[in-house]
Amino acid sequence: MTYDPGNVFARILAGEAKCHSVYEDARALAIMDVMPRADGHALVLPKAQAADFLSLPGEALPGVFAATQQVAKAVKEAFAADGVLVRVHNGSAAGQVIFHMHVHVIPCHEGRQMKPPGHAFADDSALAEHARLIRQALARQAAG
Amino acid sequence: MTYDPGNVFARILAGEAKCHSVYEDARALAIMDVMPRADGHALVLPKAQAADFLSLPGEALPGVFAATQQVAKAVKEAFAADGVLVRVHNGSAAGQVIFHMHVHVIPCHEGRQMKPPGHAFADDSALAEHARLIRQALARQAAG
Repeated sequence: MTYDPGNVFARILAGEAKCHSVYEDARALAIMDVMPRADGHALVLPKAQAADFLSLPGEALPGVFAATQQVAKAVKEAFAADGVLVRVHNGSAAGQVIFHMHVHVIPCHEGRQMKPPGHAFADDSALAEHARLIRQALARQAAG
Repeated sequence: MTYDPGNVFARILAGEAKCHSVYEDARALAIMDVMPRADGHALVLPKAQAADFLSLPGEALPGVFAATQQVAKAVKEAFAADGVLVRVHNGSAAGQVIFHMHVHVIPCHEGRQMKPPGHAFADDSALAEHARLIRQALARQAAG
């Protein structure tokens, strides 16, 4: 899959588009999904340019999944979730919409259905608050 | 999450239960899902004992996702898929059924729905054939 450097995640990584970030290191950036399937739905983006997981350079793999693990633990704690869904859609047939690889981290609660995909843009102030809760949980985990 | 060493994936890794394997290295084993959501649905298991992705030791992360990337490329090729879904269910609230971490690799085709979860056990000879196709694609990728 060819990489379009003008995609919105590339622009976020370049600081040219806004996001609610929750985590950043040399290899990955984690942000809130603006159309969350559940409150706390975060996305982990490799800084490496890759349209999807299949085309991600091998040397970029460990960093993005180490970041994903940290974010998944924090999302679970911050939203008192019973479980966490971690997934990567590769190709539009698999539900991918933006062609910079991203790992979805979605908190799950027993008996609660996820919202349908493409449901609605979340309120910006709600996303800011959810990002704050995840950053707090990450800080607690780093301290603990 | 505590780890139950008697789970079926632990028994497969110990050679005590059967599977249709497609890939194995020092850190991961990939097998066919016996209740596939689509033909070619494979699972990648870390050899490290971990109930889920959140509790996987950090040093085990790169190996399992490197194996997953290889398997995902092979599944896409072997089943002429338009896309590939890669996901990890963590906790029963997120749809996890067997509590040894496993990464689902599911080929997707435009306009074709996945089968519902827990739909039916696949025919054993069909799984054997699907495993053979994926192993062939892996061999081609290793050669090419």
